[in-house]
This record gives sequence, C-alpha cells and structure tokens, in this order.
Amino acid sequence: MRIAELSRLSGVPVGTIKYYVREGLISPGELTSPNQAQYDDGHLRRLKLVRALVEVGELSIAETRDVLASMDSPGKTLHETLGKAHRAVTPSLPSEVDGESWEIASRQVEELVLRRGWQVEAGTPAWRLLTQVLATIHALGQEDLALLDDYADAAERLAEAEVNCVLQRPDVESMLEGMVIGVVLGDTLLAALRRLAQADVSCRLTSETTKPAGGRVSSVGGGGG
Amino acid sequence: MRIAELSRLSGVPVGTIKYYVREGLISPGELTSPNQAQYDDGHLRRLKLVRALVEVGELSIAETRDVLASMDSPGKTLHETLGKAHRAVTPSLPSEVDGESWEIASRQVEELVLRRGWQVEAGTPAWRLLTQVLATIHALGQEDLALLDDYADAAERLAEAEVNCVLQRPDVESMLEGMVIGVVLGDTLLAALRRLAQADVSCRLTSETTKPAGGRVSSVGGGGG
Repeated sequence: MRIAELSRLSGVPVGTIKYYVREGLISPGELTSPNQAQYDDGHLRRLKLVRALVEVGELSIAETRDVLASMDSPGKTLHETLGKAHRAVTPSLPSEVDGESWEIASRQVEELVLRRGWQVEAGTPAWRLLTQVLATIHALGQEDLALLDDYADAAERLAEAEVNCVLQRPDVESMLEGMVIGVVLGDTLLAALRRLAQADVSCRLTSETTKPAGGRVSSVGGGGG
Repeated sequence: MRIAELSRLSGVPVGTIKYYVREGLISPGELTSPNQAQYDDGHLRRLKLVRALVEVGELSIAETRDVLASMDSPGKTLHETLGKAHRAVTPSLPSEVDGESWEIASRQVEELVLRRGWQVEAGTPAWRLLTQVLATIHALGQEDLALLDDYADAAERLAEAEVNCVLQRPDVESMLEGMVIGVVLGDTLLAALRRLAQADVSCRLTSETTKPAGGRVSSVGGGGG
C-alpha cells in the first residue's frame, strides 16, 4: 500500500509516519519509483504499536526506539527477553534524593524482596525505580502512604496473570509484542482503574458520613475544609 | 531562611527554585531588602512536593500547577476534593483511536462499572483514560491482554487501603497532600513493583522450563527465539 493508505488505516498523519521513519521507529517502505514507496501489513502493525507506545504509554521517541530494539533482538530465554523489554520500558528518573532517605529506601526494598521471596536481580531499573519512589515518600515525610505490602500483593497477582497470558501466545514474536504492550499499557490501565476505584470508595464513604448529619453535605474528617 | 538555605535543605538548585516561583508553583519569599527574600518551612514543604510531582511523578509544570491549585482550594466534601485532585493528576491523552474501537471500549467500561457496582460518574478523566487504553488494546488486536477484572480487583483493594490511609490523617490539608502524593507516586510505585514481580514470575517459569531439558537454557514457548 502507499503511504496515504497506511495513514488512513492507522489513523497516523502522513507527516508523522515520515517522522517515525526518519527516527528509525518504522522501516522505510520499498521504493517502487524514485518518490514512491510501498508499505505492507508489517508496517501497519508496527505503526499501530508505535502510536500506542508514544500516545498512550507516553514513551519518548528514544524510549520507543529502545523498546522496539528489544523486540527485534529477543534474548535466549523468556526471562532474558522480559528483562530487556523491562529495561526499555522502565523510566530512569533523575535521582536527587538525599542520602539518608536513599539508604532507608534501599533497606526497605531489600527487606521487601526477601520477605516476598522474589527472585530478582538487585540494581535493575525497576529496583532503582522502587528505591527512588520510597526514598521520595520518605523525604516528603509521608511514610504512611507506602502501603508497600498491599501494593506488592496486587503486583504479584497481576504479574502471575500477565506473564501466563503472554505465554499462551503461539510464537515468541507475539509473546514479545504482548509483553511490551502489556507492561506499558498495563501501567495506564491500572492508573485509570485505581482512580475510578478511589472515586467509588470516596463516594461511598462520603455518603455514609453525610447520612447521620441528616442529608447535609459534610466535610469528611471534620478538619475544617 | 534565604534561598541558598532553602536550596540546601530541599536539594533543589537555586535556579530551579526561581523558575518554580516564576511559574507560580511556589509563592515568592518575603522581601527583606530589594534583592533578598526570606523563605519558611511552608516553602520547603511545598518545594519538596513540587519536586516529587515533577521528578518522580513526571508531571509537567502545567499539570503540577493544576494539582497544587486543587490542593489550595479543596471541595466541600472529601469526595469533591478527591475528584478535583484526580482530575488534576489524570493525564488526558490525545484520543485518535478509531470509532469502532472506541465504541467497543466504551461498552466495556460501562459493563465493568456496572459489574463492579462502582459509584462513579461517566466521563471523568479516569473514565476517559480507561476507555482510551481499552480502545488502544482493541485497535492493536491484543484483547487477551485486557485482564480487566484482575486489574479491577487489584485497583479496588488498593483504593480501599489508600483512601482509608489518607482518612487517618488529622486535618484536611494533610489529607489532601496525602491524596495527591498517593495518587501520583502510587502509579510509579505500582509500575516498579509490577515489573519486579513479573521478573520474579518469568525467572521461576524459565528455571522450571529449563530443568526438564537437563540444565540447558531453553527458549520458553518453543517459538524459535
């Protein structure tokens, strides 16, 4: 198909497609004349993936390129491949947390991993990201928010379901694709659902609190809002 | 304290503090002479929060400004306030998904909310975000990845723990702060833990798969990686 058709089927403007090609996110079409290129279903599939990673996953162009590279050269085992994909889709944040908070958080992470019996390598991007979030929560003096084992329970249950779901797939290529999409879009899916569930909890709590007051809208917590 | 001391205590460079003041994220210090301003603990506290939202939560300056505004003018009830904070910390993505995928996703969200009995408003940013992720998953032909009720279970359990944790706080101001930090850093916390848990699951699965092959590293799934 020509680029106009690729644009129509993917919903991505022609200019954006050309930009993705220049940035190496999509391979160039096959030239059929000096200024005309043909694209195939592989291009369309890749283009949809790029759009999902960039627009919904909010990855940068460089991060997207890393993710695609990890998909194009899988590791020798599922585990190695997952590791590569994870590294590519795990943000590395600027780590400017003070030394004391960082130390406390590092200990927290080690203890958590030990307590859960997780077989994971120290120092991976996910490990560092976890340390950084906990250090930040500590530096902000908000330790009560780190409902660490509640979060870890949820993460464990989801991970089991997610990895097993990806393993149902017929070939390594689509496993990899599923893994990358699952990790990136899963973050957004959880973010959306957690907010909806919070809205539900706070709605129920508010109406419970309001009832005894005889129908008047009350300020939950009584703190003077 | 002077700006140099504020910088030392917060770990934020003086130039960045001045930038945050110009952008309205932090109120200016009190001028004690034409070119010297005094800052207090309130400034320090706010500055740490801004840094956490920008650097760890990866919010933009505009998003951070919205979040702070929602904190400075809470609603009449906890629910209203949560709603405001959520709107501020829920990304709105460019919605370019095709019409058919969007329709299917919209139905999925309505059915989910009904099935879970969630008392939530249709059309909130979280609702739209969920619709968009599901539409994207559909457009990518990856429906099997939408382990929707597994994710919803996790979200419900976490929301209950999170909202209750914030309600333990002594006053509305610190509830609000906890809510904003919890929503934003909670996303990152979950992202990190989910990746660690996935690494653990894939590590265990890989070693199980490897064993029968007599110790050789095997390609899980047998798809020819």
